[in-house]
Amino acid sequence: MEGRNDKRRNVMTKSEKSKKIYKKACEVISGGVSRNTIFRKPYPNYADTASGCYITDIEGTQRIDFANNMAALIHGHAFPPVVDAVIEQLRKGTAYTLASEVEVAFAKHLSSRVAGVERIRFVNSGTEAVMTMIKASRAYTGRPKIAKAEGTYHGTYDFAEVSQTSNPSNWGDVGNPNSVNLAHGTPKGVLDNVIVFPYNDIEKTIAILEKQADQIACVIVDPVPHRVGLVQGTQEFIKAIYNWTRKNGALLVFDEVITLRVNYGGAQENYSVKPEVMKVFDPHEKNLLLPHSGTFSANPITMTAGYKAMEFFNREAVTKINALTEKAVEQIKAVIKLLDLPVSITGAGSMFRMHLRQTPPKTYREAYQTKEESAVINELLDFMYHKQKILMVNTFTCMLSTVMGQHEIDVLTEGIHKAFKALKPKIDKLKNSQL
Amino acid sequence: MEGRNDKRRNVMTKSEKSKKIYKKACEVISGGVSRNTIFRKPYPNYADTASGCYITDIEGTQRIDFANNMAALIHGHAFPPVVDAVIEQLRKGTAYTLASEVEVAFAKHLSSRVAGVERIRFVNSGTEAVMTMIKASRAYTGRPKIAKAEGTYHGTYDFAEVSQTSNPSNWGDVGNPNSVNLAHGTPKGVLDNVIVFPYNDIEKTIAILEKQADQIACVIVDPVPHRVGLVQGTQEFIKAIYNWTRKNGALLVFDEVITLRVNYGGAQENYSVKPEVMKVFDPHEKNLLLPHSGTFSANPITMTAGYKAMEFFNREAVTKINALTEKAVEQIKAVIKLLDLPVSITGAGSMFRMHLRQTPPKTYREAYQTKEESAVINELLDFMYHKQKILMVNTFTCMLSTVMGQHEIDVLTEGIHKAFKALKPKIDKLKNSQL
Repeated sequence: MEGRNDKRRNVMTKSEKSKKIYKKACEVISGGVSRNTIFRKPYPNYADTASGCYITDIEGTQRIDFANNMAALIHGHAFPPVVDAVIEQLRKGTAYTLASEVEVAFAKHLSSRVAGVERIRFVNSGTEAVMTMIKASRAYTGRPKIAKAEGTYHGTYDFAEVSQTSNPSNWGDVGNPNSVNLAHGTPKGVLDNVIVFPYNDIEKTIAILEKQADQIACVIVDPVPHRVGLVQGTQEFIKAIYNWTRKNGALLVFDEVITLRVNYGGAQENYSVKPEVMKVFDPHEKNLLLPHSGTFSANPITMTAGYKAMEFFNREAVTKINALTEKAVEQIKAVIKLLDLPVSITGAGSMFRMHLRQTPPKTYREAYQTKEESAVINELLDFMYHKQKILMVNTFTCMLSTVMGQHEIDVLTEGIHKAFKALKPKIDKLKNSQL
Repeated sequence: MEGRNDKRRNVMTKSEKSKKIYKKACEVISGGVSRNTIFRKPYPNYADTASGCYITDIEGTQRIDFANNMAALIHGHAFPPVVDAVIEQLRKGTAYTLASEVEVAFAKHLSSRVAGVERIRFVNSGTEAVMTMIKASRAYTGRPKIAKAEGTYHGTYDFAEVSQTSNPSNWGDVGNPNSVNLAHGTPKGVLDNVIVFPYNDIEKTIAILEKQADQIACVIVDPVPHRVGLVQGTQEFIKAIYNWTRKNGALLVFDEVITLRVNYGGAQENYSVKPEVMKVFDPHEKNLLLPHSGTFSANPITMTAGYKAMEFFNREAVTKINALTEKAVEQIKAVIKLLDLPVSITGAGSMFRMHLRQTPPKTYREAYQTKEESAVINELLDFMYHKQKILMVNTFTCMLSTVMGQHEIDVLTEGIHKAFKALKPKIDKLKNSQL
């Protein structure tokens, strides 16, 4: 027992390092972080170094990384082929005011593997990509409104943010969900131009779209929306929306910022939808509908890293990581069964999310975490992070990387086993309150 | 003569390389480019490598780079201290789901040198920065509208794009400029929430702001707006706007994405304005007014590159580059005088822009290029690019880098001398049409 106390004291002392830096951070950065995602109470740890699927903070604690920067790091950290290619490019320049060949090679590669990609424009972030596709849809159709699913995250463009965090106090009737602002002060002119529908509910969604059919420029869909519960869009739902857009002069926009990892050709491989219009960007056009630039767009560093990462994310790698994820889900399901817990799992490809409810949620409103659920999730995450040395996404979600193997899955399963065991009374209590 | 012809034929053959790649590019990228800025008729050249102030395309042609990726490359290409620091960080990881120390160090550094920076949030591009500041202003004030100057470029967020390229056919009365959409299909809800004023015109601007005083969240100002003519905001103008915002519960937003290079402490050093509110981002707040994240925001690669670049852009470097720019402007003014040309120059710090008019423009409408002016500017740019091997920004603007010296300035001056001489009849003709 004394040994354990010593160890803990040791950890406390070491962790003063992050605490100290965070204090300084708060003096110059709002809330001390540039992304609320990495905010932790009472303070986040600062990273020292990361390699493969392991990340070490400045206190010297090593953790397995099942967050992979919100699914972005498909090959984990400092993947040597990407690092080497980027270093080579760095020495030749990071941004030109000329074109660069790697942009064309990368575009060709993406177009060859993703059916929905015929024409590309590279931008700087998911936020910019979604904003640009919404603007392209308006430019093409000449219509002002977009439709999006309640609870979906599509970046920080204000139109795309509407109803991202609706809650029971403001979401309204599910047959006609309110357009709820995320940021305070969002203009009414934004809210009025965003129509909100319930994901995977064909009947209600079509009825909602029909009401303003001639106003809708596009319907934007994430095929496996994380914040809706990491639930896959059903075949019927995606098909129904696609057909509706075809009939009504609107466009279907697939946001695959996160889900491109699901199959070799993206999550869209699971559906039969066809690519639509990119001509609005072409500067050859006499009447250019959407003038578009970006100082860092398609810079050769990003292009090199992206191209190399996708080359190594070949069919074999996709099959392997998806199989490993399936194995992880199987093992965790066995733990859930063993402990007789009201826990379910959703996901697709190399991503899965755990929910503190008996049956997997099918909608945003079902996946919605009450304050009580949220508190238990946070305790589980803290248990995993501090005691099991496993970093997960803050919705109790895992995003795998290709450099993981059975060993990491076993460590994860064991960690989750311990966390569930420790918090079983609280999880069971939630179940009773759900009844 | 034969020699010259041979040389030209040689250039033509070599340039097939870029032509060929561009043809492929058009098959997968809209218009063949991800940024219209780099689009050139009939096709852009592809970069091979760049170092310092020189950039070489895949045809093997080396040019001096006076564009520096639209002013972003303050130290030119592949600046060794930045490259070395980035390589070191690359090997330790590119993005964590934890915090990183370099973010805090960089924020501290910026805060210590730029008076208006008390609190920071790092984002991924100028577009995201402007969008986030506009959202912050709305969140803080609870008001929906923004005011911006006619003709200013503030990135691709649709609110910030309004009236960026207004022209005589749609700009309306200067005392009440129309809010003109850039992209086709921009919702009326966007245009209605953007108030447009004429830059540097105090009386008209204040009158315009007064009309909707209680609706305005912020007035956004670029202190040396490139597209308005690279004209500095006058002391009186900036002061008048600042005082107006203080009196009317609105915020003043300085967009220094480009102009931070003007002085050690940014262009804002020239004015006496005070920083305003960043608390809206703080995730500690119980009622968080502006939830804000970003998967790649403040990633340690960008932070390392930015921090290292700013460290080397110290007071001495700023003084040196600004003095060199002044020298360049002096030399070019001598050429203008020698050739008796109706050409004027505007700018600040290490940036200057040439205008085909006798007196420097003071407003966007004066700086506005007619079709005829634009055609001559393009001929000048092509002359500089193809014959003098000098890359400039497509408004006939130069953005210098710290690695330049007197030699590059002399080559620039000589090139401009030749270009002006060759096109003197056309430039003079413009003058006559202006009379």
